[in-house]
Amino acid sequence: MDERAVLVEFGCRVRELRETRGLSQERLAELAHLHRTYIGSVERGERNISLVNIHRIARALDVASSELLMKSDGSKN
Amino acid sequence: MDERAVLVEFGCRVRELRETRGLSQERLAELAHLHRTYIGSVERGERNISLVNIHRIARALDVASSELLMKSDGSKN
Repeated sequence: MDERAVLVEFGCRVRELRETRGLSQERLAELAHLHRTYIGSVERGERNISLVNIHRIARALDVASSELLMKSDGSKN
Repeated sequence: MDERAVLVEFGCRVRELRETRGLSQERLAELAHLHRTYIGSVERGERNISLVNIHRIARALDVASSELLMKSDGSKN
């Protein structure tokens, strides 16, 4: 898997889970103690996000960090 | 979970999988296209590793990235 594709896949997964929960990017950012524009760039696959920030977003979405790295169809990535 | 603990947990998981496969840090570094000293610092939880490097290490260990974020006992992190 191409490295850019890894980031895009991750961003899609974050967006999917955020929308499922009815959260705005701004609200997710607040919950995760991150900036709204940062969340936007993560969802677009523009950021090589760090493990600590993966953990913050996972906690804000109430999922395990490992689940954020799974594909949208639930298969392992 | 404390953020430093997230990195330590991840490092332990990498070390466990590497040793299970009988790989040295040097060999894992070669397979992942990373530096040996970098692998050492990741295993000690000293690095806030990025998603691209998580993916590289996962590929080198032949596991899904999501499995690297699970706890050593197999539970979700």
